[in-house]
Amino acid sequence: MSDSSLPLTSVTGSSTRAINILLINPNGTSSMTDACLRSLEKTLPPYCTVTGFTSPHPTPSAIEGHLDGVLSAAAASRAVIPIAAKYDAFLVACFSAHPLINALREELSGPVIGIMEAALYSARMLGGRLGIVATARRSKFMHEDAIRYYGLEGFSAGCESTNLGVLDLERLPQDKVLGLVSDAARRLVEEKGADCIALGCAGMTEMKIRCEETVDSKNATAQVIDGVAMGVQILIALVREGHVTAKGGIFGSSEAGRKARGQDWL
Amino acid sequence: MSDSSLPLTSVTGSSTRAINILLINPNGTSSMTDACLRSLEKTLPPYCTVTGFTSPHPTPSAIEGHLDGVLSAAAASRAVIPIAAKYDAFLVACFSAHPLINALREELSGPVIGIMEAALYSARMLGGRLGIVATARRSKFMHEDAIRYYGLEGFSAGCESTNLGVLDLERLPQDKVLGLVSDAARRLVEEKGADCIALGCAGMTEMKIRCEETVDSKNATAQVIDGVAMGVQILIALVREGHVTAKGGIFGSSEAGRKARGQDWL
Amino acid sequence: MSDSSLPLTSVTGSSTRAINILLINPNGTSSMTDACLRSLEKTLPPYCTVTGFTSPHPTPSAIEGHLDGVLSAAAASRAVIPIAAKYDAFLVACFSAHPLINALREELSGPVIGIMEAALYSARMLGGRLGIVATARRSKFMHEDAIRYYGLEGFSAGCESTNLGVLDLERLPQDKVLGLVSDAARRLVEEKGADCIALGCAGMTEMKIRCEETVDSKNATAQVIDGVAMGVQILIALVREGHVTAKGGIFGSSEAGRKARGQDWL
Amino acid sequence: MSDSSLPLTSVTGSSTRAINILLINPNGTSSMTDACLRSLEKTLPPYCTVTGFTSPHPTPSAIEGHLDGVLSAAAASRAVIPIAAKYDAFLVACFSAHPLINALREELSGPVIGIMEAALYSARMLGGRLGIVATARRSKFMHEDAIRYYGLEGFSAGCESTNLGVLDLERLPQDKVLGLVSDAARRLVEEKGADCIALGCAGMTEMKIRCEETVDSKNATAQVIDGVAMGVQILIALVREGHVTAKGGIFGSSEAGRKARGQDWL
Amino acid sequence: MSDSSLPLTSVTGSSTRAINILLINPNGTSSMTDACLRSLEKTLPPYCTVTGFTSPHPTPSAIEGHLDGVLSAAAASRAVIPIAAKYDAFLVACFSAHPLINALREELSGPVIGIMEAALYSARMLGGRLGIVATARRSKFMHEDAIRYYGLEGFSAGCESTNLGVLDLERLPQDKVLGLVSDAARRLVEEKGADCIALGCAGMTEMKIRCEETVDSKNATAQVIDGVAMGVQILIALVREGHVTAKGGIFGSSEAGRKARGQDWL
Amino acid sequence: MSDSSLPLTSVTGSSTRAINILLINPNGTSSMTDACLRSLEKTLPPYCTVTGFTSPHPTPSAIEGHLDGVLSAAAASRAVIPIAAKYDAFLVACFSAHPLINALREELSGPVIGIMEAALYSARMLGGRLGIVATARRSKFMHEDAIRYYGLEGFSAGCESTNLGVLDLERLPQDKVLGLVSDAARRLVEEKGADCIALGCAGMTEMKIRCEETVDSKNATAQVIDGVAMGVQILIALVREGHVTAKGGIFGSSEAGRKARGQDWL
Repeated sequence: MSDSSLPLTSVTGSSTRAINILLINPNGTSSMTDACLRSLEKTLPPYCTVTGFTSPHPTPSAIEGHLDGVLSAAAASRAVIPIAAKYDAFLVACFSAHPLINALREELSGPVIGIMEAALYSARMLGGRLGIVATARRSKFMHEDAIRYYGLEGFSAGCESTNLGVLDLERLPQDKVLGLVSDAARRLVEEKGADCIALGCAGMTEMKIRCEETVDSKNATAQVIDGVAMGVQILIALVREGHVTAKGGIFGSSEAGRKARGQDWL
Repeated sequence: MSDSSLPLTSVTGSSTRAINILLINPNGTSSMTDACLRSLEKTLPPYCTVTGFTSPHPTPSAIEGHLDGVLSAAAASRAVIPIAAKYDAFLVACFSAHPLINALREELSGPVIGIMEAALYSARMLGGRLGIVATARRSKFMHEDAIRYYGLEGFSAGCESTNLGVLDLERLPQDKVLGLVSDAARRLVEEKGADCIALGCAGMTEMKIRCEETVDSKNATAQVIDGVAMGVQILIALVREGHVTAKGGIFGSSEAGRKARGQDWL
Repeated sequence: MSDSSLPLTSVTGSSTRAINILLINPNGTSSMTDACLRSLEKTLPPYCTVTGFTSPHPTPSAIEGHLDGVLSAAAASRAVIPIAAKYDAFLVACFSAHPLINALREELSGPVIGIMEAALYSARMLGGRLGIVATARRSKFMHEDAIRYYGLEGFSAGCESTNLGVLDLERLPQDKVLGLVSDAARRLVEEKGADCIALGCAGMTEMKIRCEETVDSKNATAQVIDGVAMGVQILIALVREGHVTAKGGIFGSSEAGRKARGQDWL
Repeated sequence: MSDSSLPLTSVTGSSTRAINILLINPNGTSSMTDACLRSLEKTLPPYCTVTGFTSPHPTPSAIEGHLDGVLSAAAASRAVIPIAAKYDAFLVACFSAHPLINALREELSGPVIGIMEAALYSARMLGGRLGIVATARRSKFMHEDAIRYYGLEGFSAGCESTNLGVLDLERLPQDKVLGLVSDAARRLVEEKGADCIALGCAGMTEMKIRCEETVDSKNATAQVIDGVAMGVQILIALVREGHVTAKGGIFGSSEAGRKARGQDWL
Repeated sequence: MSDSSLPLTSVTGSSTRAINILLINPNGTSSMTDACLRSLEKTLPPYCTVTGFTSPHPTPSAIEGHLDGVLSAAAASRAVIPIAAKYDAFLVACFSAHPLINALREELSGPVIGIMEAALYSARMLGGRLGIVATARRSKFMHEDAIRYYGLEGFSAGCESTNLGVLDLERLPQDKVLGLVSDAARRLVEEKGADCIALGCAGMTEMKIRCEETVDSKNATAQVIDGVAMGVQILIALVREGHVTAKGGIFGSSEAGRKARGQDWL
Repeated sequence: MSDSSLPLTSVTGSSTRAINILLINPNGTSSMTDACLRSLEKTLPPYCTVTGFTSPHPTPSAIEGHLDGVLSAAAASRAVIPIAAKYDAFLVACFSAHPLINALREELSGPVIGIMEAALYSARMLGGRLGIVATARRSKFMHEDAIRYYGLEGFSAGCESTNLGVLDLERLPQDKVLGLVSDAARRLVEEKGADCIALGCAGMTEMKIRCEETVDSKNATAQVIDGVAMGVQILIALVREGHVTAKGGIFGSSEAGRKARGQDWL
């Protein structure tokens, strides 16, 4: 039994293991990749390097739906697999259950996660009800399906979007869009009971600040979660403990199968 | 669009923020707390300190069931709340949906997680089917209930235990117990299809090594996950991104309520 | 085959078995315990005695959240276990999946149920959609989690509360609070389709009458269910049929384990 | 706060309200109805009368499947509705989610429950995992579907049957059948982890005794639950608290509709 | 590997197998049966004949609730079973999980489906969220229960009804009712996000046209699904592939059982 | 009310609408496409033409896992979209929740379904428990995940495979593989209670015949379902009723979005 009058024992870390993470933006817009990298600068710990990768042509320039998901996953996986050996872990920086995640888990050794799952698990540990703010109306349904697929619908307060079409999103001034986004965050917290808000897209530091102001994060009323930042930190966590993707089940590589039937291309 | 001939852009971290984590062993056996601390030494990063806390008398000396959970949660919460301000985050080192987790979320500011949820979310990111190895037969049911509560039963390959009663566990030689535990891990992988194995108790480094040998972790067939190690690393991840527990929903503090009705004790 | 012209056969009961039930109020406010007992007087059958037990210091004076649940469960279980032999069954009179319920199931012989589960199962037998009226806004989330845990979310019309903070509840005149509560009941029935309303706290006879008036119980439009009353009656039902808590699974006692490892306290 | 040195307050019941319950055997075999009544004699409390009703021709003489369910529900509902005013509550004595239950809820005032739901909810309050023993192999699937419909699959250890066809059941000596039934109970407890066993048919006192011996009920290892007995006791519980079926939702009567469209028959 | 410059290979059908389907209206209103048949004329393929069957007295003249379901299932099954040999497949033309469906599956050889399941599976293949428009308020709850039973609640946008009582439905002018129905369809699409609308009753061609206009089916915004039409076409699909109802599991016939116990009636 | 002495009214079809279906084999092995077409010849109705399409290079030559799914979906969608206007509906002939299905739903007008969902919904209409026989061990996990995603896990008896690795499948004599496959079907029916067996791959007529013999389909004990055949027939059903994919929800086209941001490639 512990003697509470004794000082508590502590251990302080000293591991200087270098950790290299590849942040994969599956769409072809490198400015978004750069924005993601910039947003990581302040909180990244020493010895940890995040390299930005933008999916090459003919990947779509944005990911709106299932077809974009498939085309970007094909382009990204073909480009990432040959250079993967340099990295310890991989973050898929598209807020969805993007098909690239499971595809890479099969062929790469290091852990692979998506920014949506990083945000969802973080939300589960920080609060009781999670909500997602999205820009386009249509992603609401894809987000709901993904939450259900991950088994977390019992903890979901739902998704709120700006209800703007894709074309409106391009045309409207950014401040107007941010206003509508922070309205969606407010509805999630005040009307639907969310206490954790996941940002439904990658690389929008401004959106995070606006939403935090709206939902009173300063007083811890609600947490606004950026899946890019949490995704990188969780990958660091998995790598520090020596984890790789388990290959004995659903994520076995098909390389041997390809060879066996003479498929010499990918 | 990206020009793949250019070198990729990177950002390397430099945050030297000190992070202090309190590892709370809700049972009163300080040797188990010490074993947890020792197991963290190699992988803990710089500037991160984990302090071990053993729940004081009259906490139970081990946690077998619901009553032990309640008694240990009461003892630990009363002892932790007064000293919590020194720590950034809190790990409840009992492999269960221990009632202390949610209790502390209400009264503390920093993130609080349990080693079971840390292991479960890690397993979800590293493989397709998770399994739990337990020592006592009875914990199998509690683990199943907790997995269902977390929404993850669709990804569970089940729990396997040594099927030993508590008294047998005390009496049998440790090597015999470890053999039965690694048999359970093997059944989970070979018969039930698990590719990630969570260790169903805290502080057993030996158990992890034995299970890893049995399930061929060397070749990445399956991953053996230690919730203590992953719990600490995930808390570091949450703290680095500035997260605290959201207070606007289910985890609001009852302090104001206690004052309002004149309850001047805890 | 039956001959419908014959008179039907009947059996009339004569069992005078004495049944003693301990009603456990886990918070320390004995006036609430007394109110519960008074509310039972009219409908309790002969030979059945309900004894009120108020959890002793340092139990909280009210139960608002998880910490209160844990602290009250610890205080109550330590006080109830030594006197349990005198009672046939035990009702935990806090409207929640209170941790005391499972804790006592491990150490006591007679059946143990909570007033929330009594109300939920009753609602399932009396109607198609159940709703819960709560006082404090925050309990809404805990009730939803509990309904999901019990597997009954498919039959839930949701929870409605007064949306008052705990401090408002203390300050406002009782009639104002009752008005807001009956508004919540009306919303559940008229807007959300509930036909059974469970009262989300113990010992409020007035609240039941108000809600019944609001939801037209006189014409059987909806039933208002008091978990205290139904809990006592269901325990009587279980005891009459000779049932005790099953000990071979999740609710085995930890007494032998405590002895084996030398824990001579509780 | 309570002063634990004071004696506890108690209330002893004195309600002599007469309660009349109609036990409806939906099949036409009156010997089974009589067996049910006999099994209730010992535990029924004073002032409570259970009248046995055997469904008239052309109801099936046994209920094996969905067609038998429909035919028996039609025969029983037409015969019960005209005589229902004499009774306070109604038990459908067929172990299934029998369609008669919801049909009667629409047209009768008093509570209506089935013996399967009575057994399931009882099992939920007495243990952690429920199992069902059945005679015919085929009922296994119907039981599983019903458990899922009731939302309780998370607590189910499954169904075990004798795996005998219907014809074998008729031909084999009763003791042989009982032996196979108690084997099924043993498998549920020892191999599948059930701690509560529901008897999958009505009126078999012998089956209960055999199963109790097999699963060590004497030492509370597992509880064997007879839905007939528990169904009667739970109906008494609901009636004592003044409950009737809620009519404002799914169980509204269609009588007004029949009249409005000129349907002058049932 | 394919050589995309080659013309694609095709196969054109020539099966002139005659297919006979019995469309069973479980209520006794033959004008509704006739309306169903008329609605099929334009789209039915050659060699396929649909025969209308109206359930005989004493079936109810409309099906509002569970009792009507049971009574109509009994009347219809007794009348259909003797004439079933002439038909290859059977459609139960009541929009519900009507008990006749499973009853007939036991005793008939050919496939048996209901118009609700036909509409639900069609909706799952044509869009992402299904909604149901109903006339009577009360059917909303029965539809929700059925959707959940079929496992499809994750894809449901809910049910909307006219909120009219049965008596209002009879009294109001048809155009007024259609207006309220199309309002319900609009709410499902615009407010709840449905993209497939199932018509919650049989034989209402007018209702389909109105709803299609309201939800902009012309531009494929949403699909309005008539379960009668899709039910017939899906049965043709099953029959063409030689399928019958599987008898080895839950849908075995009880005929041998009836004989074994001397039940010479149905 | 119907007068049962009158002859029943019938309608016989005469629609000669030509229906053109594109059967898309997402892998590059055209012999498999040809085998699919051949298997359809006997049962395809007049005026219905199925054209076989084999996905072009660099699609994988077989689809084992997630990466193959993504690469084949990208290759197939780019090749199918330009020629889609000639076809009324589209069948994705890979037994999985293949990502091509939803991708094509976004960009094509006619209905798009996969052979797995066709088989699953057919199984739900023909029996009570569905099982899947697979060749490779690893697909078991992907099939389970897909069943859960479709909401049908409550009706699943599980998946059984030959437990052969991909390399063994290539090396072993075909008859040996068929023997192991039919063993898997037998286990599903006899040990796990399946009454409908879905064949877990496309274009294997021989496998269907072997499995039917094993599970006694001749006597309707179980049905063996070929998703290719049922998929074509269900698409015919949807097209006959004039259905297209609903575009107002999750399956809106991204074409306008691509144009808006200047993406002039696919």
